[in-house]
Amino acid sequence: MEAVDYLAEERRKAEFDVEEMKIVWAGSRHAYEISDRVSRLVASDPVFRKDNRTMLSRKDLFKDTLRKAAHAWKRIIELRLSEEEAKTLRFYVDQPAYTDLHWGMFIPAIKGQGTEEQQQKWLPMAYKMQIIGCYAQTELGHGSNVQGLETTAKFDPQTDEFVIHSPTLTSSKWWPGGLGKVSTHAVVYARLIIDGQDHGVHGFIVQLRSLDDHSPLPGITVGDVGMKFGSGAYNSMDNGVLRFDHVRIPRNQMLMRVSQVTREGKYMQSDVPRQLVYGTMVYVRQTIVSDASRALSRAVCIATRYSAVRRQFGSQNGGPETQVINYKTQQSRLFPLLASAYAFKFVGEWLKWLYADVTQRLEANDFSTLPEAHACTAGLKSVTTSATADAIEECRKLCGGHGYLSSSGLPELFAVYIPACTYEGDNIVLLLQVARFLMKTVSQLGSGKNPVGTTAYMGRVEHLTQCNCEVQRAEDWLKPSVILEAFEARAARMSVACAKSLSKFSNPEEGFAELSADLVEAAVAHCQLIIVSKFIEKLQQDIPGKGVKRQLETLCNIYALYLLHKHLGDFISTGSISPKQGALANEQLRLLYSQVRPSVIALVDAFNYTDHYLGSILGCYDGNVYQKLYDEAWKDPLNETVVPDGYHEYIRPILKQHIRNARL
Amino acid sequence: MEAVDYLAEERRKAEFDVEEMKIVWAGSRHAYEISDRVSRLVASDPVFRKDNRTMLSRKDLFKDTLRKAAHAWKRIIELRLSEEEAKTLRFYVDQPAYTDLHWGMFIPAIKGQGTEEQQQKWLPMAYKMQIIGCYAQTELGHGSNVQGLETTAKFDPQTDEFVIHSPTLTSSKWWPGGLGKVSTHAVVYARLIIDGQDHGVHGFIVQLRSLDDHSPLPGITVGDVGMKFGSGAYNSMDNGVLRFDHVRIPRNQMLMRVSQVTREGKYMQSDVPRQLVYGTMVYVRQTIVSDASRALSRAVCIATRYSAVRRQFGSQNGGPETQVINYKTQQSRLFPLLASAYAFKFVGEWLKWLYADVTQRLEANDFSTLPEAHACTAGLKSVTTSATADAIEECRKLCGGHGYLSSSGLPELFAVYIPACTYEGDNIVLLLQVARFLMKTVSQLGSGKNPVGTTAYMGRVEHLTQCNCEVQRAEDWLKPSVILEAFEARAARMSVACAKSLSKFSNPEEGFAELSADLVEAAVAHCQLIIVSKFIEKLQQDIPGKGVKRQLETLCNIYALYLLHKHLGDFISTGSISPKQGALANEQLRLLYSQVRPSVIALVDAFNYTDHYLGSILGCYDGNVYQKLYDEAWKDPLNETVVPDGYHEYIRPILKQHIRNARL
Repeated sequence: MEAVDYLAEERRKAEFDVEEMKIVWAGSRHAYEISDRVSRLVASDPVFRKDNRTMLSRKDLFKDTLRKAAHAWKRIIELRLSEEEAKTLRFYVDQPAYTDLHWGMFIPAIKGQGTEEQQQKWLPMAYKMQIIGCYAQTELGHGSNVQGLETTAKFDPQTDEFVIHSPTLTSSKWWPGGLGKVSTHAVVYARLIIDGQDHGVHGFIVQLRSLDDHSPLPGITVGDVGMKFGSGAYNSMDNGVLRFDHVRIPRNQMLMRVSQVTREGKYMQSDVPRQLVYGTMVYVRQTIVSDASRALSRAVCIATRYSAVRRQFGSQNGGPETQVINYKTQQSRLFPLLASAYAFKFVGEWLKWLYADVTQRLEANDFSTLPEAHACTAGLKSVTTSATADAIEECRKLCGGHGYLSSSGLPELFAVYIPACTYEGDNIVLLLQVARFLMKTVSQLGSGKNPVGTTAYMGRVEHLTQCNCEVQRAEDWLKPSVILEAFEARAARMSVACAKSLSKFSNPEEGFAELSADLVEAAVAHCQLIIVSKFIEKLQQDIPGKGVKRQLETLCNIYALYLLHKHLGDFISTGSISPKQGALANEQLRLLYSQVRPSVIALVDAFNYTDHYLGSILGCYDGNVYQKLYDEAWKDPLNETVVPDGYHEYIRPILKQHIRNARL
Repeated sequence: MEAVDYLAEERRKAEFDVEEMKIVWAGSRHAYEISDRVSRLVASDPVFRKDNRTMLSRKDLFKDTLRKAAHAWKRIIELRLSEEEAKTLRFYVDQPAYTDLHWGMFIPAIKGQGTEEQQQKWLPMAYKMQIIGCYAQTELGHGSNVQGLETTAKFDPQTDEFVIHSPTLTSSKWWPGGLGKVSTHAVVYARLIIDGQDHGVHGFIVQLRSLDDHSPLPGITVGDVGMKFGSGAYNSMDNGVLRFDHVRIPRNQMLMRVSQVTREGKYMQSDVPRQLVYGTMVYVRQTIVSDASRALSRAVCIATRYSAVRRQFGSQNGGPETQVINYKTQQSRLFPLLASAYAFKFVGEWLKWLYADVTQRLEANDFSTLPEAHACTAGLKSVTTSATADAIEECRKLCGGHGYLSSSGLPELFAVYIPACTYEGDNIVLLLQVARFLMKTVSQLGSGKNPVGTTAYMGRVEHLTQCNCEVQRAEDWLKPSVILEAFEARAARMSVACAKSLSKFSNPEEGFAELSADLVEAAVAHCQLIIVSKFIEKLQQDIPGKGVKRQLETLCNIYALYLLHKHLGDFISTGSISPKQGALANEQLRLLYSQVRPSVIALVDAFNYTDHYLGSILGCYDGNVYQKLYDEAWKDPLNETVVPDGYHEYIRPILKQHIRNARL
């Protein structure tokens, strides 16, 4: 049997209806159809080729990105794509570009923070891309601490203008995508200063470049921040540096939906609730969780297919060697990541619902669920992106030496993904926010205020801190109620333990700082519980298709028991389960690996990724990895000549040298 | 206070003699002096500049590497450097090059596997670099399973030659460094076939390229395998692909120290013990462990210095913000890595001793300690390289957003380091070897055969499976004997538990396969015990210098208690410690972080790395990171022009377009 046949054989083993699973994965038949159609459209278009991307110099890569962005826009207009389709198309082009920020940050910022009038003025131009915008918040000296930004916007009542200025080196705007070379405009965050008084950070629309010749406007110094992690990857993006030297903008370019500055220089708050900002955050973080499941599933698809093609050791009587996917060590590292991809997908779907729910409540002036929703999305953003970053690298390692080749696709996927752990909230800072919310929740227990949403389980804290896990045999771990209670008990007990430790400090802030590492662990436990419980909730829905639900149940159990094994110390030291029960969970986990094994190739096929999108020789659909690796090698620029450039200057003289007096 | 003063102030806080610590770190005053002198020599030589490396195209990067290698060789000859000095110089040039393989694999292979006669013929040429060699073992289809290599070397008795051939696509040699574009010769591993009989894999010296014009010899197809992870990084190396089409070499180019083929085609074994090969493995893996401590310490140095310069949040009354190194979350992630760097350094030193000991025994025909030494080095290679790879990425995350910039040095350090987890034995495969040895050791307990060396503790298995940890207060965890017993108990109990589970299988190999994930965990526990115990042994030596020993004691305790917290599930579920004792360890760990805090900058200064070697703006000695980041940005090729290449084709047309019928 040839390598090309291995995956075909694997596909015959699948114990469920793959076509139905594709729809489950996509979220709906409608979403599946758009995704399927648009991804093929992109894959078949030669302009969107990306197989040589990691070999391009920075300048060539950037120009290639401009070309792709322009072509994408052309196709979007020609085909009259809807907003959803256009977004899907940009997603499958799979190359970070200024358009990501224009559509993903600039336009939403104006929508969320601009007045009706401002929206009417700026949005039509932005939608037609007659202006291109970015989001200029972070500075050289400030990232997480937004309130510490140093750029100033001083109101000049004489001219009715704001003067935007960068007073220090560290106030230079730093990182905004699309800023370095492309954007004509930016939403700039700066300290509003009126008559010497600092009113904190606000957003301003600032034109950066001439619409005629693209040169920076007077007082503006702008450029690219330089190379970033990896080859290809995020180097297609012009993350920028920006300094203002007393740049003047009209007063009406401050985004004034929430706060206003009048002609007379009076600072006012509108009746639009400030909490709206949190609604936007919920939205942005929900998309990040969805992206996590996509990045993770992509890495898992590559590693799973290659693990079924690759064979090593175990040949008997001259037969083929063992597929590496059949080794338990491989399964115990890979299958939990496959399960995580599905888990993150479903929690991402639930977050979409949560965002809709929060929005509806905000519109009805109901802010009661907002703190909980905010903590929950912060935490889920943190744990899913951290897990995904680690998982991509783990998938690379699971591909052995060949995973190190750029043509495996995994190095670039890792490099392009990891910023998600830092942007939109550093993952540790976010977990501390979650922990703060949990401590508040614990402290209010018994006050009559019942915890809501994902913290509702805290209302049963007395039971949860006393209950005994009822597992006696390995298969008891298959019961959703058992899993759920173990995760709830662990999370509740860790939070309560932290709260107890905190109460010993006379200064609560000092205590919080001192115990922050423990608090982070409690926050992780809470977030993992949410993911597990949303997976279990998903399984309670009606899921059609032969064997589909059964596969998802297996994946849900793998996900939960893998976490349990990974954090065994938490579960046992809190007394949530006994050591014996931990061992039984591990035993059950091994059985689940065997159970899911025949279906794993079909489970990654269900992601419905084209070879173009995967961008990986190791993950190609037909499994013909060796021939493709071999052919790909010869395309490297170094192979353009047989004798390398530099031979005559640097190799031949060494070989021909006569050495007399070396000590070697 | 300016950013540039922060580190100076930190240095004044150090509670120990940094100069003495530098000598401890280097291993000896002699080693320190060579390292100090040679690293400055490299740093001051403009040819060895590397600050623009990540921006170079593959071809330019490769040519730059050839230039550096030639210049390094020129300086080695001119300055009449010793072998140790030459090696140190190549190390500080810090750019993977064909010379690494020539000196590190090709020459050692001939020394270890060649007869006296072969050594006399080939080594002088190699030492003078009149030939350049590489080590061609791995193939497209085979890495870990060396016995599965497919390349053949058929003996032709008519001509007294071997015919080297690549019978399949997957038999193509793949990965050897220095092969792609430079090496004139290779030690090629191939199946020895005599008269149709397969005698397994042997090494052969094969000339690949003409010494006149560097063109590949007839029958040889050779090239580079293409781009690898990251920009810069290992792309300076010409990892190669190689195919043989019936290439003939004289019989005396088979490396015949251990096995011979006579003129008549008779296959014979010499009286040189085969075990010698394992001695070489011990040597190579010892160097890998040393390299781990260097790579880890480099990343830690960068992250520690930047964490002392970077400030975020916590400003009071307009004062400076808090140094991020003062956050417990930062400390609990960073300080254990600092401690790990020292731990790996000392276990690496001990491995040097082990290698000398094994060599001496081999010469006296004493093979008794070899299996234990082999298992121990395999395991230490695995755990130190895996931990280092993870730690480099963790250090990058600890630098926040700016760690993502190439100029932080961390992306390239990660990309260049991670192959260490795969080469010279995949880390999981190695741990399975350790586990196999442990299971054998357990099975022989009570047979009268006492376990030796690092497994000696298994001789006390009865005590270790019953003892109770005596910790009652947090400070009890500072006693070396307490730490040691907890780690021994954990390791012994995990091994014994695996052995018990294995005994339930009727087919032991099946059991081993089924339980391999658990066996890997037991192997890790064993290896971590070795590292902890070698650190403790180091502290029992006489260590001069004010406060030096005290700092090392603190680091040793941090390392041990960090591992204990990380693997709490192991310790508690085996009953080695109680949940309460685990909590006390965590409490003590927090105190240790406070204790080491004033000295951490001096502890990374003790690595004595030049700014050139560190290659990181965030880690620069003077701490002037913001000015340097800002200045560096403008050097990016994208900033050569204000308006980017591609503006007229791809940006302006979008901005000037009139769109009528979009659905957006």
